[in-house]
Amino acid sequence: MKIGVVGGGQLGRMLGLAGLPLGFQFRFLEPSADCPAARLGEVIRAPYHDMDGLERFAQDLSFATYEFENVPAETAQWLSERLTLAPTARALSIAQDRIAEKTTFRDLGIPVQNFAGISSAGEIEAAVLKVPLPAVLKTRRLGYDGKGQRVLRVGSTDAASTVRTAWNELGKVPCILESFVAFSAEVSMIAVRARNPGHGASIAFYPLTQNEHRDGILWKSQAPAPCDQSGELAESARAHVRTLMESLDYVGVIAVEFFVTDAGLVANEMAPRVHNSGHWTTDGAVTSQFENHLRAVGTMPLGSTECHGASVMINLVGRSPIASRILEIPRAKLHLYGKGPRPGRKLGHVTLTGPTAHSLAAPTAELERLVAWDL
Amino acid sequence: MKIGVVGGGQLGRMLGLAGLPLGFQFRFLEPSADCPAARLGEVIRAPYHDMDGLERFAQDLSFATYEFENVPAETAQWLSERLTLAPTARALSIAQDRIAEKTTFRDLGIPVQNFAGISSAGEIEAAVLKVPLPAVLKTRRLGYDGKGQRVLRVGSTDAASTVRTAWNELGKVPCILESFVAFSAEVSMIAVRARNPGHGASIAFYPLTQNEHRDGILWKSQAPAPCDQSGELAESARAHVRTLMESLDYVGVIAVEFFVTDAGLVANEMAPRVHNSGHWTTDGAVTSQFENHLRAVGTMPLGSTECHGASVMINLVGRSPIASRILEIPRAKLHLYGKGPRPGRKLGHVTLTGPTAHSLAAPTAELERLVAWDL
Repeated sequence: MKIGVVGGGQLGRMLGLAGLPLGFQFRFLEPSADCPAARLGEVIRAPYHDMDGLERFAQDLSFATYEFENVPAETAQWLSERLTLAPTARALSIAQDRIAEKTTFRDLGIPVQNFAGISSAGEIEAAVLKVPLPAVLKTRRLGYDGKGQRVLRVGSTDAASTVRTAWNELGKVPCILESFVAFSAEVSMIAVRARNPGHGASIAFYPLTQNEHRDGILWKSQAPAPCDQSGELAESARAHVRTLMESLDYVGVIAVEFFVTDAGLVANEMAPRVHNSGHWTTDGAVTSQFENHLRAVGTMPLGSTECHGASVMINLVGRSPIASRILEIPRAKLHLYGKGPRPGRKLGHVTLTGPTAHSLAAPTAELERLVAWDL
Repeated sequence: MKIGVVGGGQLGRMLGLAGLPLGFQFRFLEPSADCPAARLGEVIRAPYHDMDGLERFAQDLSFATYEFENVPAETAQWLSERLTLAPTARALSIAQDRIAEKTTFRDLGIPVQNFAGISSAGEIEAAVLKVPLPAVLKTRRLGYDGKGQRVLRVGSTDAASTVRTAWNELGKVPCILESFVAFSAEVSMIAVRARNPGHGASIAFYPLTQNEHRDGILWKSQAPAPCDQSGELAESARAHVRTLMESLDYVGVIAVEFFVTDAGLVANEMAPRVHNSGHWTTDGAVTSQFENHLRAVGTMPLGSTECHGASVMINLVGRSPIASRILEIPRAKLHLYGKGPRPGRKLGHVTLTGPTAHSLAAPTAELERLVAWDL
C-alpha cells in the first residue's frame, strides 16, 4: 500500500522508517531538495499549493496524511475530495487556528484558559477586559517552537498599550490573547484512533509524557510523566483526548499538550500528527507513534502501546552531536534526521529506555552534559 | 559515514533501516534489480566479482561489510586491500568452507561432531571409517537453508555405497561427511565484537536463542532459549563464541549455531553476519543485531544487548501474509522484505515481545495458526 505524506521532514522520515517493514511504500510532497524523508520514498518536489505537483502526488494514491500542520487548507481540501486524507481536513483546520482550537476544546468541556481574538487594533480594549495581564499574545496561525508569540507581564504602561505594542511587533496579523497559565509542568498525551472496517473505531493511548522546553523548543520528554505519580493526570488527559477524537471522528495520531496547574490540566494545543514529544515511543513502546499513525491511516489494526518501562528523550538542536560520544552512554539510542547543522534547527534526538525512571537518572544526566544546543 | 554492503537482500535492508537513524549512509553491491535494500541506499548493480562494479562500489568508502557469506573470496580480498572490511576476509573464508569451519572450532576446543572431507570418490572409504552412519553429507561450500545436504541413515546397502550415491546426487563436489548428532534442541548465540580506537575490544552477547527448522528453513526462534532454564548452555555458548571471536580478532556480529545434546553443546556452523535467528532483536532488545553490527563495523561503541523480556520470531516463507490479520495479534510486529511471493522464499518475519515467555504463549499459538508456508 502506498501512502502519500505531505511534507518530507524528519517526521516523514520516521514514518518511512516505521512503515517500510509493514509493507507500506511512500510518496512525499515536499518543496525542498534533499529533504530528510527523501531516502524513504518517492518525492514529488513541488510547493504545497502547486496544482501540478498535487496532481502528481495524488495519482493512484488511496491514502494520504501530513507531517506538519501548516498544510494549506485548500491543499487538504483538494486531497480530501480525491482520496482518504487522515487526519481529516477539518482536524487540520482546527489545529491551524488557535481560536478554533481553543473554542473546540472549550465547547467539548476540555479546560482552557481565558482567551480572546484580536484581528484589528479596535479589538484590543475588549480583549484586555476579558483577558487581563499577565497573558500571552500569539499569532492565530503558523506559530511553532515558541515562534510568533510574546509573553506580556503587568507593567508600568496600561494593558492595552502593552498588547498593542506586542501586536504591532507580531506584524498586526490575527492573534489570540491567552491568560498566562501558572503551571507546574507541561505534559502531552499522544493517542491514536483508527476506524477499521467491521471493527468500529479503536483508540489507544501512550503514557502521559512530561515535557521541558528551552527557548520555546522541546528539550526533554519523560514518560511516564514524573509529575503524575498517582496517574490522575493521565486519566484526565485520556478522557479529554477521547472526547476530542470522538467528536472529530479522528483517524491517526494526535498530540494534545496540557499545562499542569493546581486546578488540574489546562489544554494548550493539539497537533494532528505524530509529535516530537512522542519520539521516545520508537524505542520505548511496543508500537511507535509512527507505526500506529500509519496503521490508522491505512485502516490496519492498531498496535500495542505498552511500554518497556520508562523513557527519556532529549532533542539535538543546531549543532551536530558527536555520535560516538552519545553512543557510549548505556542504552542511548540515536536518531539523526540527515540534516546539516543550523542554529535552532532540530537535527535529531536521543532516547533512553530502562526498566524504571530511576534507572535512567544517571544516563540522562550524562546525556544532558553532552548535548549542547546552538540556537 | 557511508558503509558499503555486499549484497542487497533483506539483511541489507534491515541494516539500512537500523543505520539511517545513526547517520550512516549505504551503498549496496547487488546484481539483481529491485533488491529489498534498494530503498535504503545507493545500489551498484553488478555481479559480485565484476571489477568495474567493485571499483564503483569501493570508491570513497572507508568501511564495508557483507550480508551473506557466499561473497567470492577474491572480492573480499580485493576489498580488504582497499578499505576496512568487517568481518575480515579470513572470517568469511572460514565460514565459506565447512571443513575449515569445523577445523577452526575443533582447534579452539569448541566441541564438534566427527567429520571427514570427501573431495573424490577415492576418499569415501576412509571417510566412512572415520564417520560411521548415521551421518550427514553436505557440500563444503554454498549450502544454505538445508540445501546441498543429505541425511544418511544406516540401511541395507553398505555405508560407502550410501555415501557414494549421495555424493553423486550432490554433483560430486567437495563435501563434508559429519556424524549425525542426536540433539534435543538447536540454539544459536548472536554476539558482536568491536575494536574501538583507544578502548580495546569489546564484546556483547544476546541471550541464547532456540531455533526450530522446517524443511531446513528457520521456522521459529525463541529468546531466551526455553531449553536453557539454568543458563548453563548460554554460559557455555558465550565462552565458545568469545574464544572464536578473539582468535579471529573478529569485528561485527557473528552467529554460531549449536546442537544441544546430552553431553552439552556441539557447534554446527557459524555465520559471519547478522542472522535470521537474531531478527527478534529489532523489537526485543535495546540495540538490534543490525545496529550493533554497524556500530562495530563503523568503530562506534556497542549498544546494550539487554532485552525487553522474552521474544518469539516466526518466518514468513513463500506466501505473502495478510498483514491486517497478523497485526490483529496483540504485540505482533511485522517485518516484510519487499519481495514478491515465491515458493521457499523468505518474505518477512513476525516478532512477538512480552515481559515473560509465558505471556507470549497465546499470541504465538495464534500466529502459528495464521502463518502458512509455501515451499
